[in-house]
Amino acid sequence: MLQSKLFTKTQKEVPGRETSAGAQYLLRGGFIDKLSAGIYTILPLGLRVLRNIENIIVAEMDALGAQRVLMPALTPKANWETTGRWQGFDVLYKVKSQQESEYALGATHEEVVTPLAQRFAFSYKDFPFSIYQIQEKFRDELRAKSGLLRGREFLMKDLYSFHIDPKDCDEFYEKVRESYFSIYKAVGISQSTYVTLASGGTFSKFSHEFQTVTEVGEDTIYLCDNCGLAINREIKNDYPKCPDCGGQNFDEKRSVEVGNIFKLGTKYSGEFGFTASGATGEKLPVLMNCYGIGLTRMMGTIAEIRHDDKGIVWPDAVAPFRVHLLALAAKDTEVNEKIVQVSRNIYSDLQKRGIEVIYDDRQAMSDGEKFNDADLLGMPFRVVVSQRTLAQNCVEIKRRDSKDATLVKMGELANIIIN
Amino acid sequence: MLQSKLFTKTQKEVPGRETSAGAQYLLRGGFIDKLSAGIYTILPLGLRVLRNIENIIVAEMDALGAQRVLMPALTPKANWETTGRWQGFDVLYKVKSQQESEYALGATHEEVVTPLAQRFAFSYKDFPFSIYQIQEKFRDELRAKSGLLRGREFLMKDLYSFHIDPKDCDEFYEKVRESYFSIYKAVGISQSTYVTLASGGTFSKFSHEFQTVTEVGEDTIYLCDNCGLAINREIKNDYPKCPDCGGQNFDEKRSVEVGNIFKLGTKYSGEFGFTASGATGEKLPVLMNCYGIGLTRMMGTIAEIRHDDKGIVWPDAVAPFRVHLLALAAKDTEVNEKIVQVSRNIYSDLQKRGIEVIYDDRQAMSDGEKFNDADLLGMPFRVVVSQRTLAQNCVEIKRRDSKDATLVKMGELANIIIN
Repeated sequence: MLQSKLFTKTQKEVPGRETSAGAQYLLRGGFIDKLSAGIYTILPLGLRVLRNIENIIVAEMDALGAQRVLMPALTPKANWETTGRWQGFDVLYKVKSQQESEYALGATHEEVVTPLAQRFAFSYKDFPFSIYQIQEKFRDELRAKSGLLRGREFLMKDLYSFHIDPKDCDEFYEKVRESYFSIYKAVGISQSTYVTLASGGTFSKFSHEFQTVTEVGEDTIYLCDNCGLAINREIKNDYPKCPDCGGQNFDEKRSVEVGNIFKLGTKYSGEFGFTASGATGEKLPVLMNCYGIGLTRMMGTIAEIRHDDKGIVWPDAVAPFRVHLLALAAKDTEVNEKIVQVSRNIYSDLQKRGIEVIYDDRQAMSDGEKFNDADLLGMPFRVVVSQRTLAQNCVEIKRRDSKDATLVKMGELANIIIN
Repeated sequence: MLQSKLFTKTQKEVPGRETSAGAQYLLRGGFIDKLSAGIYTILPLGLRVLRNIENIIVAEMDALGAQRVLMPALTPKANWETTGRWQGFDVLYKVKSQQESEYALGATHEEVVTPLAQRFAFSYKDFPFSIYQIQEKFRDELRAKSGLLRGREFLMKDLYSFHIDPKDCDEFYEKVRESYFSIYKAVGISQSTYVTLASGGTFSKFSHEFQTVTEVGEDTIYLCDNCGLAINREIKNDYPKCPDCGGQNFDEKRSVEVGNIFKLGTKYSGEFGFTASGATGEKLPVLMNCYGIGLTRMMGTIAEIRHDDKGIVWPDAVAPFRVHLLALAAKDTEVNEKIVQVSRNIYSDLQKRGIEVIYDDRQAMSDGEKFNDADLLGMPFRVVVSQRTLAQNCVEIKRRDSKDATLVKMGELANIIIN
């Protein structure tokens, strides 16, 4: 797209009082806009990142055979009373209609997905299956924090699986665990992300979290220096030794939870009276697991751990655009026209090849402002067209995560960027 | 996809008390599930329809140069007080947090998009621009109606445009009007859809609605039998003659509003103090228009006007799958195996060609049940593989909107379906 047409602008100053670098860059770059504490508008550049993350997640969900739905945010009080969470779950926003109907804004969707599945699955033959959605969640958090890291409204992928056979239930859980790592790898945070044992609540020994190490994280984990398994502080006392390798040395780290997977057993199916009939007509319990990933939080986490002192360094797979094309103004009118013409050709050529480009065609901006914006916005490739590069029939190309810019012949540009 | 894997099932009986045929078929087919009055889960088949509608709309918004964002549903009370709608707008759901912060659930987003645009646009040079989103809306309707036609939570595309030049403002409005008709044409409802003059509120002479004629609609329009312009009942008294052609004969019709476009003038920009500086530093008023289309309502409308007595007849462009492939069981085991093998080959061949197929591979279902499901679910092409068709080295192909099934040679199948 043409940067001159983008309605957002970068900002030199950090609006508000965000302290984390990732949140500052997301705000300054115009990826997000703060409407209220913990509540953000996703702006065009940010939405492109979110869509990339979404596509990566959807591909993994499809590979698992999960079926996508879209559940409502307005969820009836009765469903939450069935599970005892209308009172017990303190982050529920509650809404009353003109006609005195009461709803909770969905903070999670066990209360909707369980009776939904129950309406369609009756026999053991109908199992296993899994259902997911990518949908806005609402949580009445006392403290919103670090931009997208703990929001009151946030985009989440929540997956629920339904099983009769306990072995099948466990195997699917393991498959999702592997799938999650594929997702973290694809979005570029796997090297800082650790499987973490966490509390399993009242009905499971433990759950698994995926924690990404960053100083601005709200959680504390203990990382086994032998095998890399992490243990959440909340249950660390139960594990003086690493349960995987027996190691006794742990590094204490701050981290942010970028996913969790949870064996629910028969907790919710039991509460809704959801059973299946077996081969001889007997009633069989339905086992459930749930698996969550916050998409907006993931975007915040990526910005947090992939930045330098100039801005964000987006991983290729999630960057809003692959290329940031900069046309630098020249004093000489004729040279300037030539720069614009060459830049337009590159812009349209790259687009024809399916490469996403944002073209900084703004005439009134100084070179310095253009370079600063390119660093702040963090596209993987910066391509510069200027009087100097044209003198050698070249453009300058620089990867955002490298210090070195190189001149390349015009005809070689596309190949370098594609590979 | 394999129909045996789909977690939803079709139902013979209509759950609940839906009276409109479209809503009944959407529920019976497993496109949607009712959670509460006016609140629905979109199921896998329905979500595919919704995605197709979304893609059509997004392509039109892109063509207009509109920029996509995602605004929150939780919107602060202060914004609604600025416009006087915290009290005056009776469909607002209101939410209070643990810390006594108050929010409205977004019923529309002028209160968010106006100050958002204001943070980025200062000079006349920053105009015009337009911003849209596809996002859940919430309205505390006294009566929910006819499935997706009037919901309390629904998916909407809302576009807002910002202008300095009144001529440019009007021209963009006309462009969107044309764009809306491209959308109605693409989704298959343009022949029943009429531009309708409606009330412009206190600040505009009138607005334009797009009304689709159907008996289950809540609105009443008067259709000029000379030129096809419609007038909403709410302002019909002001127009004894058609304002376009002077005609005096009108047909009264029931209809559902599938879109509206509205000149807001300076109403919201004025309330938020949003002005732009002109070339000589003078303050210029900012003009706004807004343009809405309900995606879930559009899905409901399509089901309503595109069905027969057996089920939905999806237009090609929005159908969940292009092909419904039915393998009919034969008594002879060997023949049966052959049918399954041929069906699998067709299934994988069509998928390789990029044609979306749902394959009814369910062994326990009778032929009659499979045919009924195919009619109810309404994919454009039904392809049957059976002992009878294989005897002639053929498959049977039938368009959902035609009575005639024809036998075609195996090798010709794909070409017929692509065209």
